[in-house]
Amino acid sequence: MIMPETQAPWPARDGLRITGVRTIVTAPGGVPLVVVRVDTSEPGLYGLGCATFTQRFHAVVAAIEQHVAPMVIGRHPADIEDIWRMLHFSSYWRGGPVHNNALSGIDQALWDIAGKRFGVPVYELLGGRVRTAAAVYTGARGGEVEESIERAAALAEQGYRYVRLQFGGPGIGTYGGTGTPGGYPGSPHPDGWGVGQYLRDTPRFFERARSVLGEELGLLHDAHNRLTPKEAVVLARSLEPYRLFFLEDPLAPEHFDRLPEVRAAAPMPIASGELVSSVTDAARLITSGGIDYLRLHVSTVGGLTPVRKLAALCELTGVRTAWHGPPDVSPVGAAVNVTLDVTSPAFGIQEAHVYPETVHEVFPGALRTVNGYLTPSDRPGWGIDLDERAALRHPPQTHLHERWAAQVRRPDGGIEAP
Amino acid sequence: MIMPETQAPWPARDGLRITGVRTIVTAPGGVPLVVVRVDTSEPGLYGLGCATFTQRFHAVVAAIEQHVAPMVIGRHPADIEDIWRMLHFSSYWRGGPVHNNALSGIDQALWDIAGKRFGVPVYELLGGRVRTAAAVYTGARGGEVEESIERAAALAEQGYRYVRLQFGGPGIGTYGGTGTPGGYPGSPHPDGWGVGQYLRDTPRFFERARSVLGEELGLLHDAHNRLTPKEAVVLARSLEPYRLFFLEDPLAPEHFDRLPEVRAAAPMPIASGELVSSVTDAARLITSGGIDYLRLHVSTVGGLTPVRKLAALCELTGVRTAWHGPPDVSPVGAAVNVTLDVTSPAFGIQEAHVYPETVHEVFPGALRTVNGYLTPSDRPGWGIDLDERAALRHPPQTHLHERWAAQVRRPDGGIEAP
Amino acid sequence: MIMPETQAPWPARDGLRITGVRTIVTAPGGVPLVVVRVDTSEPGLYGLGCATFTQRFHAVVAAIEQHVAPMVIGRHPADIEDIWRMLHFSSYWRGGPVHNNALSGIDQALWDIAGKRFGVPVYELLGGRVRTAAAVYTGARGGEVEESIERAAALAEQGYRYVRLQFGGPGIGTYGGTGTPGGYPGSPHPDGWGVGQYLRDTPRFFERARSVLGEELGLLHDAHNRLTPKEAVVLARSLEPYRLFFLEDPLAPEHFDRLPEVRAAAPMPIASGELVSSVTDAARLITSGGIDYLRLHVSTVGGLTPVRKLAALCELTGVRTAWHGPPDVSPVGAAVNVTLDVTSPAFGIQEAHVYPETVHEVFPGALRTVNGYLTPSDRPGWGIDLDERAALRHPPQTHLHERWAAQVRRPDGGIEAP
Amino acid sequence: MIMPETQAPWPARDGLRITGVRTIVTAPGGVPLVVVRVDTSEPGLYGLGCATFTQRFHAVVAAIEQHVAPMVIGRHPADIEDIWRMLHFSSYWRGGPVHNNALSGIDQALWDIAGKRFGVPVYELLGGRVRTAAAVYTGARGGEVEESIERAAALAEQGYRYVRLQFGGPGIGTYGGTGTPGGYPGSPHPDGWGVGQYLRDTPRFFERARSVLGEELGLLHDAHNRLTPKEAVVLARSLEPYRLFFLEDPLAPEHFDRLPEVRAAAPMPIASGELVSSVTDAARLITSGGIDYLRLHVSTVGGLTPVRKLAALCELTGVRTAWHGPPDVSPVGAAVNVTLDVTSPAFGIQEAHVYPETVHEVFPGALRTVNGYLTPSDRPGWGIDLDERAALRHPPQTHLHERWAAQVRRPDGGIEAP
Repeated sequence: MIMPETQAPWPARDGLRITGVRTIVTAPGGVPLVVVRVDTSEPGLYGLGCATFTQRFHAVVAAIEQHVAPMVIGRHPADIEDIWRMLHFSSYWRGGPVHNNALSGIDQALWDIAGKRFGVPVYELLGGRVRTAAAVYTGARGGEVEESIERAAALAEQGYRYVRLQFGGPGIGTYGGTGTPGGYPGSPHPDGWGVGQYLRDTPRFFERARSVLGEELGLLHDAHNRLTPKEAVVLARSLEPYRLFFLEDPLAPEHFDRLPEVRAAAPMPIASGELVSSVTDAARLITSGGIDYLRLHVSTVGGLTPVRKLAALCELTGVRTAWHGPPDVSPVGAAVNVTLDVTSPAFGIQEAHVYPETVHEVFPGALRTVNGYLTPSDRPGWGIDLDERAALRHPPQTHLHERWAAQVRRPDGGIEAP
Repeated sequence: MIMPETQAPWPARDGLRITGVRTIVTAPGGVPLVVVRVDTSEPGLYGLGCATFTQRFHAVVAAIEQHVAPMVIGRHPADIEDIWRMLHFSSYWRGGPVHNNALSGIDQALWDIAGKRFGVPVYELLGGRVRTAAAVYTGARGGEVEESIERAAALAEQGYRYVRLQFGGPGIGTYGGTGTPGGYPGSPHPDGWGVGQYLRDTPRFFERARSVLGEELGLLHDAHNRLTPKEAVVLARSLEPYRLFFLEDPLAPEHFDRLPEVRAAAPMPIASGELVSSVTDAARLITSGGIDYLRLHVSTVGGLTPVRKLAALCELTGVRTAWHGPPDVSPVGAAVNVTLDVTSPAFGIQEAHVYPETVHEVFPGALRTVNGYLTPSDRPGWGIDLDERAALRHPPQTHLHERWAAQVRRPDGGIEAP
Repeated sequence: MIMPETQAPWPARDGLRITGVRTIVTAPGGVPLVVVRVDTSEPGLYGLGCATFTQRFHAVVAAIEQHVAPMVIGRHPADIEDIWRMLHFSSYWRGGPVHNNALSGIDQALWDIAGKRFGVPVYELLGGRVRTAAAVYTGARGGEVEESIERAAALAEQGYRYVRLQFGGPGIGTYGGTGTPGGYPGSPHPDGWGVGQYLRDTPRFFERARSVLGEELGLLHDAHNRLTPKEAVVLARSLEPYRLFFLEDPLAPEHFDRLPEVRAAAPMPIASGELVSSVTDAARLITSGGIDYLRLHVSTVGGLTPVRKLAALCELTGVRTAWHGPPDVSPVGAAVNVTLDVTSPAFGIQEAHVYPETVHEVFPGALRTVNGYLTPSDRPGWGIDLDERAALRHPPQTHLHERWAAQVRRPDGGIEAP
Repeated sequence: MIMPETQAPWPARDGLRITGVRTIVTAPGGVPLVVVRVDTSEPGLYGLGCATFTQRFHAVVAAIEQHVAPMVIGRHPADIEDIWRMLHFSSYWRGGPVHNNALSGIDQALWDIAGKRFGVPVYELLGGRVRTAAAVYTGARGGEVEESIERAAALAEQGYRYVRLQFGGPGIGTYGGTGTPGGYPGSPHPDGWGVGQYLRDTPRFFERARSVLGEELGLLHDAHNRLTPKEAVVLARSLEPYRLFFLEDPLAPEHFDRLPEVRAAAPMPIASGELVSSVTDAARLITSGGIDYLRLHVSTVGGLTPVRKLAALCELTGVRTAWHGPPDVSPVGAAVNVTLDVTSPAFGIQEAHVYPETVHEVFPGALRTVNGYLTPSDRPGWGIDLDERAALRHPPQTHLHERWAAQVRRPDGGIEAP
C-alpha cells in the first residue's frame, strides 16, 4: 500500500516494515480480552499489545481492522511516537476509550517489537529498572462483611500485604459486594443501592475488619464514583481510625474539579483516575491537587507512549501511580503495567489479578504474583506470548458485559450515577 | 429479549416499545454519513438520528449494532433521558467520539419519534421557538487569496451575510486552503505548513479581502487548532483592523486551559469547541472564560439530550452558540442544529453547508439556506426522511477520509499538531 | 569494588558491567569542553556524555572522578534511571550545576552505550522520530548594528531561516554585542551597560534590520536576564512591528515568578530557562504560564534522563522546546539536543553553533547544520566519537572563562545583575 | 594579579588587599570539614569560613582553588557583598551546593576579617545582639524505641530543654534510627524502609516517650523528606496528642509547593528547608505559607551574606529560624549560626551538636552547649581558630560519606526518595 503523505518524510533506514495488523478477541477467564498482533517483514518478529475494552470490544476491533491497520502497514516499527500521533490526530475527533484502546494495541505491540529486536525486556528501553518488583494489592469482596474479611485473611496468608476490601448486603450490594448469580461479580442487589446505608455501615465494617485482620495488613476501599463531595468527606473522616492505604474513586469523573476539596479534608490518601480516557484529563487530574494516587487503565489512555509521559508528570508533582489491573486487562497489559512500575520513580502500588489457569494457557509467560509482588519477565519485549489456537477455544460472549456498569439503580429506579 | 434489570423500574405504561435499531451508512455527497433508524411496535412510527463520525464510521456501526441495540430494544421510546444515561454509563469507560455518536443516533431518533407521536416539530417539545430562523455562515476557500475572495463575493451576492474566509498557497496550504486533487478539501500542500508564513500572510490577505469585499460582510476565520497561545495572540492582534465576526479554534483542545489568556488579549470574539467530545469538557469550556462562541459537533457530544443542557449553560453564562455544520453532519443532524438555534436564547450563528442535490435525493426534506437563513421544517419530528433505496446507490468508500486530519506536516516532516 | 547496598537489589542479568569512568577536558574551539567516557566489561563497548560546565570545569571533574565514579563502577549500564537517582540523592544536597553536569556525563554515556548495544541511534530507544530534522537558529552579532545585520544576511544566504540578532555599541556593549578584544565575544564595553539606552536603541535597530533583511527571515533577540518586569514589557511592546520569533530571557532566574506578567503583556513569544539548573525549577517554569519556549542547557539539568521528562511536560502543557546549543555544549551534547528535537512532539526550534574544524577533528561525527537544519546521525548511540589523541592537542586554559559573566557592570560600577 | 575589569570600579582606599585563599579539609570527628582561610596583605590578619559539603568536598575544593581564588586575590576584604555577587554571577549557571559552599567559605572568612580589623565579635557588625544566648536542641536516637528514650532522658538531665527524637527498628531503620555499624548514623536497615510501618509505629513511640519523659521536655521529630503530602498529614494528625515542638521535613524539596496544604492540616509547627541550596528557593519557602520554622544549612546557601537577608525576610513574615547544625557544620559554621541567632529577632531555636574533643583540639575556641544554650564568643571575628598542624592529623576519608543519603531503599529495591 502506498502512503506518500506519511512515508515521504521517513526515508527507509533498513528493509524492516510492518506487514500485518490483526486483532484477537478471546475470553479464557470469561472477560473478553482484545490483543493486537503486529507482524513485520522479518519472519518471526512480531509484537503484542493490549486493546481490551470489554464493554465495547466490537467497536475496538472495527476501529483497528477497518481504519487503523491500513495506516500502519508499511511503516517502520521503530517510529512508535510518530505512528501514535498519526493515528491519534487522523480521527479528527481525537481519543475516547474505543480509539485509544485501538492505539494502545498498536503502541504496545511496537514496544514489544522494539524489545525483541534488541533482545531485551522493554524496561531496558525506558531507562532501566529503579526497583526489581512491584508490591500489589488485590480485592476481597463478599456478600456479607464476614465473607469479605475471611477472604482478606486468606489473601494475607498467601503473602499479600495490601487488600482492597469491599462489602455487600441489602441496600449496599454494590459492585465489589454481592452480585447477581452468574453476572459480573457484585452487581446489582435487588434492593438497589442507598448512600445513607453505605455511609452508616462502612465504618462499622472496617472496625470489624481491623479487629479481625490486625493492624499490619494494608487495607484499601473503593467508593466507585458514587459519592458527592460532601458524602466523600463524611466517609473519609469516619474511616480515619482504620488507616486506609487509600480511599479510591470517591467522586465521578464528571466532578473531578471538586476532588481537591475532598482530598484536603480526607485524613487518608485519595486514589482516582480509572475512568479517565484522555491524556489531557489525566494531566489535569495529576496537577489538580485532587489525588495522591493516579489510577489509569493504561490501554484506555492509549498505551505506553502517553502513559509514560503521565508517569513523568506524576514524578515531577509528587503523585504516585496505581495502574488499573483487574480481569479486564489482558496479561499483555498487565506486563505493561509492571514495566511502568519498575521503571518509574513515581510508582506507588499495583492492582493485581489472579488469572485462572485457562488464561495462562492462552498467554504463555503471563506474570504471577509471588509473595505479594509482581516481577517483570526477563525475556525480550513484554515476555508474554499468545497461543492463538488456545485462544480460539474461548470465544467472547457478546451481550454479557455490556450493561453491568449501568445496572446499579437506587431504590427509586434511577441509575446510580451522577 | 428480556432485560429484567432495566425493565424492572419501568412498568409498562402502554404497549409501545422499541422493536428495532438499524444503522445506514451512505455517502451521497462523498462524505460517509451514519444515520440510525429506530423502529417501534407501532407500524410506521420510526425515528432518525445522526451518528456521523466520518473518520471512524465502522467503529460507530459496530458499537450500535453489537453493543447498543440490544440494550435499547424493548424499552419505551419516551424514556429518552434514562436510555441515554443507561447507554452512557453501561460502557464503564464513558464517552468518546465513537460511543457518543452511537448515543446521538439513538437519542435524536427518539426525539424524532416523540415529535411524530404528537404530530409536531421537535421544537414544540423544547419550549417552542424564540426566533423563526437562524442566520448562517458558510466557507469560502481557494488555493490563492484572490480565488477565496471571489468565492466570498459570490456568496454575498447569494444573500449570505457571513463568510468564513480561508486561504491557501505554498507553505500555508492548510485545510480550508488548497487541497490535494480528489482529496478532502484543503489538505495538504506538498511544501508543508509553516506557522511563520501563516502569521505573516494572513493579515495581508484580510487587508486585501476588506478592500475588495467592503466593510459590511461578516468575515470569520478558522485557525484550525494549530497555534500556540502566543501565536494566537499575535494573529489576533494583527487582524484587529479587519473586524472579524469571530476567530475560530486558535488552540488545540489539549490546551484549552490556556484559552482565557488568548481571549483576554484578542480584540475580537473567540469561537471554539468543535473537537470537544465530552459534556464535561464542554461545560468547563463554557465557564472557563476562554470563549465567546461555543462550537460543538452535536452528535459527537452525544446528541440533543446533552447539548440542550449545554445550550442552557451558555445562556446562563453569556456564551453564544455556533454549532458545527459542515458536510460531515447529515441533513438529520443539520435539522437538529436548527432546532437548537430557534429554541435557545443563547443562539449566536449557525454554520451551514450547501449539500449537492444527491444528498437531497437521499434525505427528502433536507433544509436549504435561503437568503442567508436556515428555517426549521414545520413537519412532525425533524421533518427529514431517508430514502434507503437511494442511500444504497452511494456506498461509503473506506480508507478515503481516515487520514486527512493527520496529513498536514511541517517542512521537517513532523505532524502539524500539538 | 563491592557495593552491597546498591548491588543487592539488582541480581546480575548478564556479565555486562561498568568498568571505568574517565573525564576528558579539551578546548579545540577555545571553550573547555568536558566529556565523560564510560567503559564496560565488553571490549570496545563504551559511551560518551557531555558534562560541560565551562566556568567551573575543574569542580565537575573532581565531582566525577573523586565522588561519582566509584559509585558507578560495577553497575549494569542498563540501569540508567536507578544510577541517575542513586547519584542524585547520594549528595544529600541535591543538584546544582556542578553535580548535574557530572550526572549528565554519566547519563548520556549510558544512553550511548544502550544505543550501541542494540546497534541503533538513541532516538530509536525513545519512541522513534516524529520529524526527520530540526530547524535551527544561530547568532549574528557585531559591534555596530550594520555589522550584525551583515552577518545575519550572510547566514540567510547559507540557508539559515532563523537568526538571533544582537547589537553592540557604546552603552549597550552587552554580551552578544561588542567585546573586549581577545575576551569572550561581546563583553564588556568600557562604558558599562545602560538599560535606558538599550530600550531606546533596540527597536530602531530592528526597524533597520527588517528594512535590510526583509520580512521572511525569522529574527530572535536575547535580553540576557537584564530587565525588570516592566522594562521587559516596554521592550516587548516596542518590538511588536518586527515580529520576533521569540524574545529570550527578559528576566533573571531569581525573578521567574514574575514572568507570567511579562508574557501576558508581550506581543511575541517569550523564551527562557537557560540558567535553570534544577528539574523542579524547570517544571515550575513550564507550568507557570511564563514562557512559550523552554531553553535548558541539558547537561546542567542532569542529562537526557530528566530532560526527556521535562519535554513530556512541555508537550502536555503546550510549551515548546529550544535547547541551549552554543559553543559551551560539546558535539556530544549537541547530538543529545538533536535527539530530543526529533523525538519530542513539543519541539520548537534548536540553537546551533558552527564548530571550527578543530572541533570536528577531536569529535569525529559531530553534526553539521545543512540548509538550516540539523539531522541526527544514523549511527549507533549518539554517533559521535572522541579522538583522545587529538583532544590532548587542545588543553583547556584555566582563568579565561571564569569571569566574563560577571564582567558587565553599569556605569556606577555595579554588576549588571539582579 | 591585575584585574582591570573588576578593580576598575574600586579605586584603592588603603593598601589592604586579599593575598591568599586556601582550603583545609580535616575530619577530626570523622566527617570531612572544609574550611577556607583568606589571608591579607596585613600580616596576621586572616579569616576563616565554613565551606563544608561533606558528600562532595573534592568538588568544593576544586571550585575554590581553581576557579574562585584567582578572582578574589587582589580585592579589598571589605568589599564583601560585591565579591559575593561577582563570584555568584561569574559562574553563569549560578548557585548549587558545590559553588555556594565555595562562596560561603570566602564570605564567612571576609566577615571574620572584618571583625578582627575592628577588634569586635561579628555580631557587633550586624546591629548587635537582641539576646545573649540561643536555646538549642540536639538529637536522641537509637535502634530501639527504649534506647532513644533513655538517651533523651540523659540529655534532659544535662540541661537540654529540647530533644529531637528518632527511632529505629526493622522496617523503619531510617536515618536517625539504627545504623550500619561504622557508617553514618542511622542508615540503612537491611529490611529496607516501609512507610506503612513508620506511620503505624511513630505515634505509639511518642505515646511511650511522653509516658517516660513527662510533659515538659520539648520533643521534635524529623521525617527526613520521605513522606507524600497526605502521609505527612496522616502522621501529623496522629502525633497531635504528643505536642511536638515541631515536625521537621515532612516533604522532599522537590514537592515544597505542596507544603502549605500539609501545614494547614498539621496540628503542630512545621520546620523545613535543610536541603534548600538557593536563596530564591529559600525566599519562596519563607513566603509560601508552608513552614513555621526555616532550617537552612547556612554554607550551602552561600554563607552569612545571603542568609542574613533571609533572616530579615523571616522576621518580616513571622517565620522563625532553626539553622542546621549537626556534625557536617564545622565549628566556624556553628559560630556563624549562633551569631545569626543572637542578632535576629526571628530566631526560634538552634540545632546543636556535641563535638568530640578531637574537634576542639583542631578548632580552638569552638563553642560548647551549656545548660541547653549556646553563647557566642566575645573574641574578635567568629572567635574560632584553626590549628592546621592538628588538622593534618585527621585527613578525610574519601568514599565514606558519598553514598549514605542514597542507601535507604524500600523492600522492592527502589531508592527511598521522591
